[in-house]
Amino acid sequence: MKKLYIVGIGPGAENMMTMEARCVLEAADVICGYTVYVDLIKKQYPDKEFFTTPMRRELERCRMALTSANDDKTTAMVCSGDAGIYGMAGPILEMQEQFPEVDVEIVPGITAAISGAAILGAPLMNDFCVISLSDQLTPWDVIERRLRAAAAGDFAICLYNPMSRKRPDHLAQAARILLEQMNPLTVCGWVRNIGREDTEKKLLTLEELMEEKVDMFTTVFIGNSHTRNLFGRMVTGRGYEI
Amino acid sequence: MKKLYIVGIGPGAENMMTMEARCVLEAADVICGYTVYVDLIKKQYPDKEFFTTPMRRELERCRMALTSANDDKTTAMVCSGDAGIYGMAGPILEMQEQFPEVDVEIVPGITAAISGAAILGAPLMNDFCVISLSDQLTPWDVIERRLRAAAAGDFAICLYNPMSRKRPDHLAQAARILLEQMNPLTVCGWVRNIGREDTEKKLLTLEELMEEKVDMFTTVFIGNSHTRNLFGRMVTGRGYEI
Repeated sequence: MKKLYIVGIGPGAENMMTMEARCVLEAADVICGYTVYVDLIKKQYPDKEFFTTPMRRELERCRMALTSANDDKTTAMVCSGDAGIYGMAGPILEMQEQFPEVDVEIVPGITAAISGAAILGAPLMNDFCVISLSDQLTPWDVIERRLRAAAAGDFAICLYNPMSRKRPDHLAQAARILLEQMNPLTVCGWVRNIGREDTEKKLLTLEELMEEKVDMFTTVFIGNSHTRNLFGRMVTGRGYEI
Repeated sequence: MKKLYIVGIGPGAENMMTMEARCVLEAADVICGYTVYVDLIKKQYPDKEFFTTPMRRELERCRMALTSANDDKTTAMVCSGDAGIYGMAGPILEMQEQFPEVDVEIVPGITAAISGAAILGAPLMNDFCVISLSDQLTPWDVIERRLRAAAAGDFAICLYNPMSRKRPDHLAQAARILLEQMNPLTVCGWVRNIGREDTEKKLLTLEELMEEKVDMFTTVFIGNSHTRNLFGRMVTGRGYEI
């Protein structure tokens, strides 16, 4: 069978991959992915064929992976974090119609919302939203609408792609929109370089977040009305009477 | 050091655990958890001590785990899915003040939103919400408010605890609330017994979801306005032009 696996490899540290993901990579003939991620794992698999494309060449990468599987090579497309959350599972399934003989299987991984939360404490202990602040594929007015809805619902919020060189003020804009409805002292936090040796983290208030400078390797967490800073950990109460 | 790990063991299948989680369980003296989950892994660790409590005895379980770590036994508290999403990370961190010598570390795992999405296709490819329909700890009017907010934001939605014997109509009520704002033909899906041999899944519309009977082992996914049923897979478009 012509087989393509889309594999979430987690935040980067090899031991944060599932055993299933590692088995799939070991069994694959070809590993495809974004150049930076593939470089991270290349050394461990000296006998594989590698296909990579740089940033923003996602569709080319997907076509490459489907073509490789169609050529009877067992192929694994790697995604950082999870394959289905802002990953390559969506576009590959949309493109699969053109490769009807290829069987696509998705292997889940630890996304930054989960790995970052574990570093900060337990910010997502109750209902939460995940929102990307990148307006490359989603119009900014849709993102604004989602931020307002998240605040209206008193969700804990996890923000992906909070800032980049091209979008230096997105995080400040997002914080300003949330402040229309939320308490300025709401507990927030960020984590940078999750799953690497130089992981950094910080707790701060929503008001302070407006002035905060972060980068594209950072994941931001915004508490709900029941989130507290407990001895440096960000913890969203679920309603237990402790 | 007195050490307590809170470990997300994923949906159940052993190979969906991270390698980090397995290493922590192997190194622990004591494994704590909900009786049903601990029974799943007991056989693999014949030389451990086990502390379990049944359903709804979460706080007792947390205190047991902290006490065990405080008695200088390296302790692992296991949670199904992820430790920080409706898991034990929150209440343990809230209780930690009473055990100041215990160092708590959270080991993330694959939550049902991620593992279930991988089975259905790619329903969470863009911004999404996770909402539990259990009103045991969150009042139902807060849950209703969050459902309305999620619909207003055109989020993809993942529902945990959609139904139980005590709450047989929660899923129908939730669907009715979403239908106030959403298209009745919105693509939805559910997955039952994720990570087990008898996994079941189904795609249906939001209108059909209102009549659907599921159980507490089921995770429900509701698409946004860009979600399609592509040859039996539930796929939320992210905006790529395929």
